[in-house]
Amino acid sequence: MSILEDQKPNSKTSLAEIGEFGLIEQIKEGFPIQLDSTLRGIGDDAAIVDYGNEKTVISTDLLIEGVHFSWSYMPIRHLGYKAVVTAISDICAMNAVPKQIMVSMGISNRFTLEAVDELYNGMKYACEKYNLDLIGGDTSSSVQGLVLNMTAIGSAKEDQLAYRSGAQENDLIVVSGDLGAAFLGLQVLEREAQVTKVNPNNQPDLDPYAYLIERQLKPEARVDIIQLLKDLGVQPTSMIDISDGLSAELIHLSKESGFGFTIYEEKIPLDPTVIRTAEEFQINPITCALSGGEEFELLFTINQGDFEKIKANPNLTVIGHVTNKGAENYLITTGSEQMVPLRSQGWGATPETE
Amino acid sequence: MSILEDQKPNSKTSLAEIGEFGLIEQIKEGFPIQLDSTLRGIGDDAAIVDYGNEKTVISTDLLIEGVHFSWSYMPIRHLGYKAVVTAISDICAMNAVPKQIMVSMGISNRFTLEAVDELYNGMKYACEKYNLDLIGGDTSSSVQGLVLNMTAIGSAKEDQLAYRSGAQENDLIVVSGDLGAAFLGLQVLEREAQVTKVNPNNQPDLDPYAYLIERQLKPEARVDIIQLLKDLGVQPTSMIDISDGLSAELIHLSKESGFGFTIYEEKIPLDPTVIRTAEEFQINPITCALSGGEEFELLFTINQGDFEKIKANPNLTVIGHVTNKGAENYLITTGSEQMVPLRSQGWGATPETE
Repeated sequence: MSILEDQKPNSKTSLAEIGEFGLIEQIKEGFPIQLDSTLRGIGDDAAIVDYGNEKTVISTDLLIEGVHFSWSYMPIRHLGYKAVVTAISDICAMNAVPKQIMVSMGISNRFTLEAVDELYNGMKYACEKYNLDLIGGDTSSSVQGLVLNMTAIGSAKEDQLAYRSGAQENDLIVVSGDLGAAFLGLQVLEREAQVTKVNPNNQPDLDPYAYLIERQLKPEARVDIIQLLKDLGVQPTSMIDISDGLSAELIHLSKESGFGFTIYEEKIPLDPTVIRTAEEFQINPITCALSGGEEFELLFTINQGDFEKIKANPNLTVIGHVTNKGAENYLITTGSEQMVPLRSQGWGATPETE
Repeated sequence: MSILEDQKPNSKTSLAEIGEFGLIEQIKEGFPIQLDSTLRGIGDDAAIVDYGNEKTVISTDLLIEGVHFSWSYMPIRHLGYKAVVTAISDICAMNAVPKQIMVSMGISNRFTLEAVDELYNGMKYACEKYNLDLIGGDTSSSVQGLVLNMTAIGSAKEDQLAYRSGAQENDLIVVSGDLGAAFLGLQVLEREAQVTKVNPNNQPDLDPYAYLIERQLKPEARVDIIQLLKDLGVQPTSMIDISDGLSAELIHLSKESGFGFTIYEEKIPLDPTVIRTAEEFQINPITCALSGGEEFELLFTINQGDFEKIKANPNLTVIGHVTNKGAENYLITTGSEQMVPLRSQGWGATPETE
């Protein structure tokens, strides 16, 4: 996380001093166009992208202070980085490659130019890492707090696109990376924020939780998995990114395809830090994986014939299979081998403590 | 305005009852896909648009309660309509045709499902009128008030696109419709809101201001002008929509092209209601036209050779011409024929009272 290490800016320029157009000018200078497919970026009424015979894929995400993030644990530069990741993860979830982003921002007058700079520095770091152009957006004052809207644009050939609805009977269910860490990272950060509120001199040792905190504050979009699947010659039959928890995403794929999904508790990939910290918080680690959001891992289905191509890859884990048309969705528990029906969780729901 | 007449919904369903996915499902049903160029709409991780050999044009706008609109005069259905108009006007300003929109919405818990329905009804009415597909977005709770982000997507052939930077020496400066009405409509509505605050039984006679209020509450995007210019065989050399006032937009075109712009006070198109009401408010009507935002008329430049094609059209007015490279921008006043330098106005600035 060193490059994104939070710097406390010393100078304080009010946004009124620089003005809306000054701010846009400054953003434009910080994000020069890099991609051939960007025909026109910041500075006109609209941006223009060009993918020749490829399809344009577009997604938009709204992030609101106090709902999606809190300054008590989120450094502003990390927020910029994470906002980009959140946006492009949806493009990856179509098996497409993200190329451009647009950023709309509502800022209250308690923000300084330096704070906005930090936000854009985080975005710039993400744009460089993921090879993206920032091509436009909107800036506005806000009555209270920060509001961000991210629009992500990408491309894919038509036969490479993966919809939520494409899963077929007997397909294998695959997940990238490991799950539950981002949720537990948030629990750790919120606990420390509470302690610091009571004792401002609190100097917590967060080293044991470094992996969890990084997953929460600086998650990654799995653009690498999209490339990996292309390299392996695997076309996913359906795909989604894990933003609301594994359980909710499986139910989406099941609902859209019309097939039942069955997964195995013992197959769900968990980092040792997740298992250890879940125990400390007295939460079942599987519950963290099933219900914890903001993982940005990819969940997808593949034809059984493709199993040989992926089985040796440490980034991919087969966690179950697609069952019959109209069947329910189940988790098969370890040991007792019970079939537990999978349930979705709604708006702002969090895993329950045991 | 009859179809958009505000209906007071009787039933009150909390959004928690229906949930995020229920709300998305309901929005999806209300906006069936109409266009061939919409490959995939609501319900996957991202929407997909397809313009074959045309270019994809994309813009995004953020609207925040208390900044861009106020419930004291804005019926929620009109807000939905206006939000769509605001978004697609930027696509028109590229001389492109708007085709799809994406809507992200942050809603506080004081909103009912019926209020959200009214908002989408206004959007639906705009989508039908302008032949648009609503293809996706994001829904979220908000801490305070309503936050909307609109992303508009359109298409044009590459040689039809009009950039802000394209104006050439001696080009004519043209504006569609008339100016200043939306600004004065806001003044009238704010005055009535103040009176109603003091006397809740206030029954104002708004008929004399109907045109102004309609321009404020139910503006239109000039998609018709894009078609008209095509029909007339006129390719604008540069173009912008008037969202921050004529003066600010002229300065944008001047800055991007590097040429000076000179306009004539007597040529600026004003509706008689604007002249009469400006007098009542003791504001110069030209000031309303120069500085009043949210007109959504198109400001563009054309080659002098195209003058014959447009001169008879009541929707288009030539207001001046492009001067020399690096020259200043001027308003030539009527009568005294003084050259007054044009100035831009910043964030949230409004015309000064005389």
